Amino acid sequence: MIPIRPNVLGMEPYVQGKPIEEVKRELGLTRVVKLASNENPFGPSPKAVAAIQEAASTMHLYPDGGAYALKQAISSKFDIATNQIMVGNGSDELIHLLGLITLDKPTDELMMCNPGFARYDASAHLAPCRLVKIPVDSKHVQDLEAMADAVNENTRIIYLANPNNPTGTIVRRNAVDRFLDRVPESVVVVLDEAYYEFAMHHPEFPTSLEYIKAGRENVVGLRTMSKAQGLAGLRIGYGFASTTIVDAINRAREPFNVSRLAQVAAIAALEDDEHVRKTVEHNRRGLELLAGVFAEVGAEPGESFANFMYADFHRPTRPIYQALLQRGVITRPGDLLGNPNCLRVSIGTQEEMDIFVEELRNVTTPAVAK
Amino acid sequence: MIPIRPNVLGMEPYVQGKPIEEVKRELGLTRVVKLASNENPFGPSPKAVAAIQEAASTMHLYPDGGAYALKQAISSKFDIATNQIMVGNGSDELIHLLGLITLDKPTDELMMCNPGFARYDASAHLAPCRLVKIPVDSKHVQDLEAMADAVNENTRIIYLANPNNPTGTIVRRNAVDRFLDRVPESVVVVLDEAYYEFAMHHPEFPTSLEYIKAGRENVVGLRTMSKAQGLAGLRIGYGFASTTIVDAINRAREPFNVSRLAQVAAIAALEDDEHVRKTVEHNRRGLELLAGVFAEVGAEPGESFANFMYADFHRPTRPIYQALLQRGVITRPGDLLGNPNCLRVSIGTQEEMDIFVEELRNVTTPAVAK
Repeated sequence: MIPIRPNVLGMEPYVQGKPIEEVKRELGLTRVVKLASNENPFGPSPKAVAAIQEAASTMHLYPDGGAYALKQAISSKFDIATNQIMVGNGSDELIHLLGLITLDKPTDELMMCNPGFARYDASAHLAPCRLVKIPVDSKHVQDLEAMADAVNENTRIIYLANPNNPTGTIVRRNAVDRFLDRVPESVVVVLDEAYYEFAMHHPEFPTSLEYIKAGRENVVGLRTMSKAQGLAGLRIGYGFASTTIVDAINRAREPFNVSRLAQVAAIAALEDDEHVRKTVEHNRRGLELLAGVFAEVGAEPGESFANFMYADFHRPTRPIYQALLQRGVITRPGDLLGNPNCLRVSIGTQEEMDIFVEELRNVTTPAVAK
Repeated sequence: MIPIRPNVLGMEPYVQGKPIEEVKRELGLTRVVKLASNENPFGPSPKAVAAIQEAASTMHLYPDGGAYALKQAISSKFDIATNQIMVGNGSDELIHLLGLITLDKPTDELMMCNPGFARYDASAHLAPCRLVKIPVDSKHVQDLEAMADAVNENTRIIYLANPNNPTGTIVRRNAVDRFLDRVPESVVVVLDEAYYEFAMHHPEFPTSLEYIKAGRENVVGLRTMSKAQGLAGLRIGYGFASTTIVDAINRAREPFNVSRLAQVAAIAALEDDEHVRKTVEHNRRGLELLAGVFAEVGAEPGESFANFMYADFHRPTRPIYQALLQRGVITRPGDLLGNPNCLRVSIGTQEEMDIFVEELRNVTTPAVAK
């Protein structure tokens, strides 16, 4: 009766990682550990929490639609002009808007790797365009040569998540340099750096800012406060780009897309280097622990530079996911991520990691596994 | 260099009401009153503030993407099934999404009144469609007969803001009944009830819920927590519709479009009838005061059922707006609202209203006005 756009009907609603309370209720468990959503095991930045509690009583006032103070804070932290900064209701919203400002015709193409982040797929569905997915290589790394080979006159926007979600791998400076030289300057190349803080110390990790400051007008950088700053529940992402792209985003976005609380919390979190340092240091130890246990049970972990690890079990992981769930450990099964043989596990607290290691051993030991 | 969609380049960035701090700085004023954004003069619901302060420390966890608890609260308050409820990052986002799910071709039409709410215009720009604007009548009321006459086979979505922003007027039950009977059931009719709480006691005010519960599958109701509940800074809107429309919105939206804090605050605010009662009662007195002073200075106020008043000065109001600004009173000039001869003024605190009345008299008295 109500004609809904066919593109929209072709989209699948997102399947969220099961909430802890739901798993407890369904399975009658008291101890449940969630390592499925790449959240911060140390919680939110305490400075951000304090800023929220103070600002709560001004909630009746609309946010600053221009996010003046937040852009000033980002500008001075990263030494980039405020008119090259965009902010969104999570970087999810910026991905959505980037599609809306660039994709115009059914022949237009959006390119990404497979497996890749599901919001790029969604962005392509909402526009009249073709979605082009290029498989990662055997090391789960985005194949930039194959991606550059696939660029044609219809290519409008390319996503490189760096580190990539769900694989955790990075593309290195040399490869990105070569890629950008091969791609026409009329094609928008988005470096999605949601997990930037976990990778930034690697000497070969290239940041979007390097390219944007060097005058690459087609490069966009995306960041989020959901991971290292621990503000996933608040929805605040930001990005860098040429003024042409930022201006277009400002026309297309809702005027009050980022809440007052998200703005004040983000400013506070940007100053909280200690929380990030602690988070990243703990994360490094967690990745080592996971790499070890995955190898021990015969799975092949990707080289991760994020706050999760992706491992190839060379067989469908849905049964392993289910067995772990029965034992109160929630992970992310590969069939929801584009590769049914893989499992993605977030870095939790030390206690949560110990529980995961124990239960993974239990469910993958032949005598115990179903 | 970067080809941006022509539709997007045709959009104007939103011009926000000037922030109080900016006006103080620019004009060297110490007392500035803002009556430009229809915010709640009593601040946010205290129950919502308490809920935010308590939930701040769980900000590292993603929101419930399905908003289970919030939908339960809305469901029991308004006696409607949870699968007929949608929630958004402000009702602005729901307007944006309704355009995305319904508008598909350049010949598709979105209809609204003029003057009307700017986000409907924006929604039309982001889709490949025609925007059809039907003037309000001489009493600043939406002309539903003229709108129904303009419906044709290309009409896809019609917005009726009830009360209308910026005019404050309502369309009555008889008129809406007749309108819905005339419009084909394949056309989505959105009753935007952002100012619902200020109009709900009027015996002839029809709610979207009446029509939806009666089985009208093409009717959508939109509500917001920004006005009566005082949560404009938090971004939380909701709506009611048939399951067909709600399902399409769920496919098209970002999975975490509504923050954790917005969800907990909205649940608390829905229980805070006392804050709404106090707000609405104060508002009624404010409207009477404004109607009196507008008539006194020769302007013609519309009949308002919202938390603002719209008055026709029969001459451009930009000079009046500027003169008020010089005296520290921020209002919304008609040239930003679609009618240069009108001025929109929000209901503030008693003290703010007294200042407005005094300064309006000052700037409209011939000897004082420039």
